[in-house]
Amino acid sequence: MFKSILAPFDGSQGAQTALRKALELRAICGECSLTLLTVYRHHSMLEASISMVGADQTGNLDEIMRGHAKEVAENGKAIAAKAGYTDVRAFVKSGPTARVIVSFAQEHQNDLIVIGSRGLGSFEGYLLGSVSHKVTGLAACPVMVV
Amino acid sequence: MFKSILAPFDGSQGAQTALRKALELRAICGECSLTLLTVYRHHSMLEASISMVGADQTGNLDEIMRGHAKEVAENGKAIAAKAGYTDVRAFVKSGPTARVIVSFAQEHQNDLIVIGSRGLGSFEGYLLGSVSHKVTGLAACPVMVV
Repeated sequence: MFKSILAPFDGSQGAQTALRKALELRAICGECSLTLLTVYRHHSMLEASISMVGADQTGNLDEIMRGHAKEVAENGKAIAAKAGYTDVRAFVKSGPTARVIVSFAQEHQNDLIVIGSRGLGSFEGYLLGSVSHKVTGLAACPVMVV
Repeated sequence: MFKSILAPFDGSQGAQTALRKALELRAICGECSLTLLTVYRHHSMLEASISMVGADQTGNLDEIMRGHAKEVAENGKAIAAKAGYTDVRAFVKSGPTARVIVSFAQEHQNDLIVIGSRGLGSFEGYLLGSVSHKVTGLAACPVMVV
């Protein structure tokens, strides 16, 4: 019934549980693709100016965050591969998490978003809990909160 | 993958869309039951005391609301029957909508709740929009917001 599932993935236990549910759903949907999306926050100049990091180091920090997000996305792909799905694609994007997820889903015409009810805490800069609330409010397609 | 789906149904367009999605999901899940739940607000003595309705008429009003809720539930069953599903059960309960839905799902061991992102407005005494947010926050099982 669904043709194109999007699973936002931040590496948290909640996201892992959601990913497993997305894999199960994909399996019973027949001809259906599954895409992972890891979103990281862009460390803007404004943020840099009020943090301990000098503006000259901002680019560096963004690189580190991007690198970490890529690792998280790869871990998601590894979970999928372990479950027998080697054709799962993973993307990394930066920006405000919920909005990036919803825009991505619209662009890629995903017809279902499967998201964890709670993700990482402030350590990672955002709470997937409030993200899942925002996504259910903003998305044009159905959202499964796991 | 899901064995027992619960679809809260308030008769709104959103609830009808969610119900159709629940029927589709049920079809691909194989051995899976679908239950409808219509929740109406109990017109408590407190509410009666501040409304235009005398306390002596409260019982009467509850009967009317319960009767309307039963009709709504029957309409939901009719939509399911029209789609070929004649074994859908429908329940009517009173109380705070989100909490009643979550308690019902726990009691009946539903493993998925499929709910409309937006339901009826204040005319019916509650907004399914905020209800769906509360349900995703409170439920122990996955919630699909359609």
